[in-house]
Amino acid sequence: MATIIDGKALAKKVNAQTQERVAKLKKQNITPGIAVVLAGDDPASLIYTRNKHKKAIKLGINSILKKFPADVSQEELLAEIDRLNNDDSIDAILVQQPLPAQIDPETITSAILPEKDVDGLNPLNLGKLYANQRGNYPVACTPRGIMRMLTEYGVDLEGQNAVIVGRSILVGKPLLALLNNANATVTMAGSKAVNLPSLTQNADILIVATGTPSLIKQTDVKPGAVVIDVGINRLSNGKLVGDVDFENVKKSAKAITPVPGGVGPMTIATLMEQTVDLAQWRHHG
Amino acid sequence: MATIIDGKALAKKVNAQTQERVAKLKKQNITPGIAVVLAGDDPASLIYTRNKHKKAIKLGINSILKKFPADVSQEELLAEIDRLNNDDSIDAILVQQPLPAQIDPETITSAILPEKDVDGLNPLNLGKLYANQRGNYPVACTPRGIMRMLTEYGVDLEGQNAVIVGRSILVGKPLLALLNNANATVTMAGSKAVNLPSLTQNADILIVATGTPSLIKQTDVKPGAVVIDVGINRLSNGKLVGDVDFENVKKSAKAITPVPGGVGPMTIATLMEQTVDLAQWRHHG
Repeated sequence: MATIIDGKALAKKVNAQTQERVAKLKKQNITPGIAVVLAGDDPASLIYTRNKHKKAIKLGINSILKKFPADVSQEELLAEIDRLNNDDSIDAILVQQPLPAQIDPETITSAILPEKDVDGLNPLNLGKLYANQRGNYPVACTPRGIMRMLTEYGVDLEGQNAVIVGRSILVGKPLLALLNNANATVTMAGSKAVNLPSLTQNADILIVATGTPSLIKQTDVKPGAVVIDVGINRLSNGKLVGDVDFENVKKSAKAITPVPGGVGPMTIATLMEQTVDLAQWRHHG
Repeated sequence: MATIIDGKALAKKVNAQTQERVAKLKKQNITPGIAVVLAGDDPASLIYTRNKHKKAIKLGINSILKKFPADVSQEELLAEIDRLNNDDSIDAILVQQPLPAQIDPETITSAILPEKDVDGLNPLNLGKLYANQRGNYPVACTPRGIMRMLTEYGVDLEGQNAVIVGRSILVGKPLLALLNNANATVTMAGSKAVNLPSLTQNADILIVATGTPSLIKQTDVKPGAVVIDVGINRLSNGKLVGDVDFENVKKSAKAITPVPGGVGPMTIATLMEQTVDLAQWRHHG
């Protein structure tokens, strides 16, 4: 039976460290600040942004939530980003996705100052990560949180086969770079992959981020693999499930993240941690 | 028996197109210009830079070669790059690698203006490629040339398994992004990969860029695969060979590039083509 990777417990530990760092920074008259920009009233986005806001406040981080109606113009959003880029009390800017159809995500993410880009989506930050550059730069929070989980649970990466199912800019792509930088052999497969099981069955570390409930069955997973489930899907009966058939896969995997209580809490904890990182880098270099 | 992918013939075709485009631009009083910066006297680098210089001149491109001694300081190189960034007659800047030990490649590539970064190594360009952004930006020439070869030879990429052996910033990493953007399922393996043959044997498209003569044997390649050999190795008898055992692999592959006459000529042709692209983008947007 697999070890259950307890994202909730690890997030608690990370949050405690973040809270301590915030307290220390406050003694230097620095209060880390995050601004979350939300356009429209997507119910899931409303819940996410509210949770982020509450968590920030709880950890002592200054948090502002900027809400815009669903028909906000791109110019208005860019003007807000420009104000936040120039606001010295703000260290981290997050624009909640998905954005309304009239807004171009590329234009928005490129407009966020790389030094305040807490989602790591500005192409300059993505390029630095991809090139494995030295120095400090933000990285998308879900992949960074996953790497922390793998480290905390002592998962060996060097030379191992890591397979990522899902190619999004927020999860699959930065995770590919992080795992590659850790000397894993990485495969990234999207929805167009031919014979997906032949790929996933070869994975020592399998990460699934597709948004398809129970896409990955026990027979798709190599016995002894480490399985990270990024999916969060709400079934018609209200139950939250991941992209992996948890009950069966856990019988033969070495370790597995549950949904909920796995990747989700670590994403928010990493967002808070990285907000404090950005404050520290900006004030102390 | 495999189709031999004739990089030399394709390069000739690309060069003819480039020459025509240069002639048209000259009628608009625009002469594309490339500057190649060379530090030290590595014999291979001397040959490469001289070949690039001669090819540019032949196609009507303005070319300057800036040579520095092996003990040049980083400040001197950065000052030269700054001059070239501000030189309106220069559209493309290439700093020949490898650089002497006292020079930090990250600092150099980040200093080249993204709009003149003909090697596609500035992290901003790499990040745009990785995010699959729209619009015009340069991409490393060897991978771009490989994609052109695959297109010209009608190689289907969508959903296919592409395996890249070698993780360099000039070949493996940008190629990973290009193939991923073309909806292939991509695996990138480095020297630390465990059981490399099990990966290469699964490749519909296999690209090898390691600099190890005949690393890939016939048994490592799936029958019917397309094999791209980026390696150029000089044996003690003076013979040039790739990273693939060409004579045996060609018996069962569907298509294969020879060494020499495969990827090499396409890299220089793509460098020339992209120099003209950069001139066009800079003058006409």
